[in-house]
Amino acid sequence: MKLKIKSLKFSAGRPVAILDLKTANQLNVHLDDRVLIQKGKKQIISIIDIAKSLLEDDEIAVSQEVLEELNAKERDKVFVTPTFSPKSLEFIYKKLNCTPLNEEELKRIINDIVKNALTEAEIAYFVSSIYKCGMSIKEIEFLIKAIINSGKTLKLKGKVADKHSIGGIAGNRTTPIVVSICSSAGLIMPKTSSRAITSAAGTADVIESVAKVEFSIPELHKILKKTNACIVWGGSLGLAPADDKLIQVERLLNLDPEPQLLASILAKKISVGSKYILIDLPYGKSAKISRKQGLELKRKFELIAKNFNLTLKCVLTDGSHPIGRGVGPILEIRDIISILKQEKSRPLDLEKKSILLSGLLLELAGKAKKGEGKKLALKILQSGQAFKKFNEIIKAQGGHLNNLQPGKFSEEIKAGRTGKLIEIDNKRINFLARILGSPADKGAGIYIHKNKNSRIKKAGVLFTFYAESKEKLEQAINLYKKMIVFKIK
Amino acid sequence: MKLKIKSLKFSAGRPVAILDLKTANQLNVHLDDRVLIQKGKKQIISIIDIAKSLLEDDEIAVSQEVLEELNAKERDKVFVTPTFSPKSLEFIYKKLNCTPLNEEELKRIINDIVKNALTEAEIAYFVSSIYKCGMSIKEIEFLIKAIINSGKTLKLKGKVADKHSIGGIAGNRTTPIVVSICSSAGLIMPKTSSRAITSAAGTADVIESVAKVEFSIPELHKILKKTNACIVWGGSLGLAPADDKLIQVERLLNLDPEPQLLASILAKKISVGSKYILIDLPYGKSAKISRKQGLELKRKFELIAKNFNLTLKCVLTDGSHPIGRGVGPILEIRDIISILKQEKSRPLDLEKKSILLSGLLLELAGKAKKGEGKKLALKILQSGQAFKKFNEIIKAQGGHLNNLQPGKFSEEIKAGRTGKLIEIDNKRINFLARILGSPADKGAGIYIHKNKNSRIKKAGVLFTFYAESKEKLEQAINLYKKMIVFKIK
Repeated sequence: MKLKIKSLKFSAGRPVAILDLKTANQLNVHLDDRVLIQKGKKQIISIIDIAKSLLEDDEIAVSQEVLEELNAKERDKVFVTPTFSPKSLEFIYKKLNCTPLNEEELKRIINDIVKNALTEAEIAYFVSSIYKCGMSIKEIEFLIKAIINSGKTLKLKGKVADKHSIGGIAGNRTTPIVVSICSSAGLIMPKTSSRAITSAAGTADVIESVAKVEFSIPELHKILKKTNACIVWGGSLGLAPADDKLIQVERLLNLDPEPQLLASILAKKISVGSKYILIDLPYGKSAKISRKQGLELKRKFELIAKNFNLTLKCVLTDGSHPIGRGVGPILEIRDIISILKQEKSRPLDLEKKSILLSGLLLELAGKAKKGEGKKLALKILQSGQAFKKFNEIIKAQGGHLNNLQPGKFSEEIKAGRTGKLIEIDNKRINFLARILGSPADKGAGIYIHKNKNSRIKKAGVLFTFYAESKEKLEQAINLYKKMIVFKIK
Repeated sequence: MKLKIKSLKFSAGRPVAILDLKTANQLNVHLDDRVLIQKGKKQIISIIDIAKSLLEDDEIAVSQEVLEELNAKERDKVFVTPTFSPKSLEFIYKKLNCTPLNEEELKRIINDIVKNALTEAEIAYFVSSIYKCGMSIKEIEFLIKAIINSGKTLKLKGKVADKHSIGGIAGNRTTPIVVSICSSAGLIMPKTSSRAITSAAGTADVIESVAKVEFSIPELHKILKKTNACIVWGGSLGLAPADDKLIQVERLLNLDPEPQLLASILAKKISVGSKYILIDLPYGKSAKISRKQGLELKRKFELIAKNFNLTLKCVLTDGSHPIGRGVGPILEIRDIISILKQEKSRPLDLEKKSILLSGLLLELAGKAKKGEGKKLALKILQSGQAFKKFNEIIKAQGGHLNNLQPGKFSEEIKAGRTGKLIEIDNKRINFLARILGSPADKGAGIYIHKNKNSRIKKAGVLFTFYAESKEKLEQAINLYKKMIVFKIK
């Protein structure tokens, strides 16, 4: 059916098309069915909404995404046809009944996710099927290939290395330090990071408080040419778009089925061309995984990596408490700078972990002999080379390190009694930092004065809450009073 | 946060709210997060979209549904707050790990579905959890109660009876005949039907070719007062809104998990106040269920019905082929009228099945003695009483029986050879009828000239395809040529 475009004049984050009820009846489509919209040789699939008083019979309202994809404008004629259920739905149904999928089938599912031919509910069925039935190593490998092939890839010369943490720990911002140290030693580190999903901040959110993090692939190449390293947001590069969509649906229930976790991480690393990969698996109470799950993940990561010719190592670390002092973008970047500058007040736990990870990665990539990585890492840090490198990266990403002030509204949280601080809850610290405004309010978050196992005096300061509005500060304090964030013995 | 309403000027079938990216960041919400929108004492939860160039910082764009619920207009001030994940997500997660849910938990899930507090992807997780883990009889009963309590109910005097088929069979339009016969005998039959989901037509689509089917509850009461019976679309009455939403999500993968099927049917029957219920379970090749599944459904239906004090009977019928001649709204209504008028050319298979079901329901409700129901049903049919009743119902629903012409574009499908017609595929007949334009094009569909087991001559006419446009007719014929719709031996 030929229809005239009416622009909805907004981007909706995904293609949106609206038909009049009459037109929808003529096309025999219902709410949430799909239509194929064609203009010349360009085409896009869109899920439809149905409106009752917005449109004429011969109109279709579309969001900015559709206009861009079709290179169309208001009142252009397009050809609209119902597209019946995509083939990939059959495969999702098959997997929901625990039949393993082959390479072609997984490719179809992933491609349909990227083409927007599957609704979020349908993607949820796919995630459920993985959650319910698991995946064989072979299936995970097919999934990785499909995710890589669905997006762009980087091709870089030299020893391309990467470091990844599965996350869940408050603070724990080792990445900028590891990248600075290892790229100083000559490794190529095209580090793409995520933004926070449920935690207080992702590495991309933290770096964003001092530099830009959204770049195109050509811009990224320019940065890498200058500095051999970068710390950018992965989401804007189009590297593994299927994976971004899967994660968006998973986070509704905080599902993180193991096969998808493995595929997601490895696909992203392979798509930037990494050959030497270190994976940090923090485990423990209030972490994402237990030690047992960590060991199982390690086994699978290393098995799959072998089949992709990657040099990969997993390291299990203590994830039972926050690492570093700051939780929130500016508070965390201040920790990082104080370590790179080797200031006296620097958080030693974060430094120690960063040196451990850097050392392992240097050994893995052959930049240090076995057992000597930590020594090299420490040398690079102490010599000021790493800080110089960090400044280079920030500058190449259009940033600078001035004016790093935490939020202007703050309140100190004091201990109710004397004793030993035996527990700090990662999840609740992250949750409260979000309520304070992190990561959108860059200065918001929590400063942790006392580490786990510290001796605490009654009325001694444990945390400082920072916010950029009084309202958010009060809301966080009220919530804090209702929950147990730490334990003193 | 206080925001000003900007009307999107359309109904989207569900509440839609759009925030500017900046405002979303301020509220700390992402695409697909939820916000609570309040105006005075009225409030609504909406999933949000994020726009980049549509709105000012202090605006929120909303669809008609939001305006109606809040009784608000353009430029009204509303208070918008992020609402964190509803509690029911925890229960869905629990069920996805196969932990049985209690009454309160299922109630929360169903209420959140109705309040629009769950996204379709989250509902898909709930459906997956039922599909994966099943439900105990207790859980199904909790689900039924929750679905009934989430919507409106009818309270009627007299012997309220109902007949239901689980569907999937092409043609098979017994309902209008059974309702006409049984209400002639004094039963109260507030029959609410569905529209087609994947089949060629639902009972509501068929009746819509001769009368209105969308009514409010007070209008329905008026019709029932006049005629003791009706045949209307259930969707506009608000009887079990949670169920409608569940079905919408299920049909994406054609999932129909048994516990939800049981709950859906019984909740709808109970909410119209039915006490005497006959369930038709057609089984066989190209039907929805096998004989074994049918027997299992029968056992469960009868068990649950007992706990709700219903007099319910299930009957397993042969569903291996279409029943009647017409498939498509007008073609089916013509079958029904020819039976009610007792015309010579009437489809005897459809008449026989209608008499069987009517007889059983009359016995169930005590209008006929055991074994004498069919005789009474036939008497009512042959006397013309049923036809008179049918006319009354159609008239009460604002309709009439004139001008029932099938689509003006048609083509005969002929047999390639002589032999015996041993198979006609329900699913493919339904599929082709939809391509022809059914149910939106009322005259579109397929007329079946020869029943299963008929002797066929080479070049004898098997089917006539009807469409209201040449284009649709050609499309159906092209598809027909690529599939096996029948077998001759």
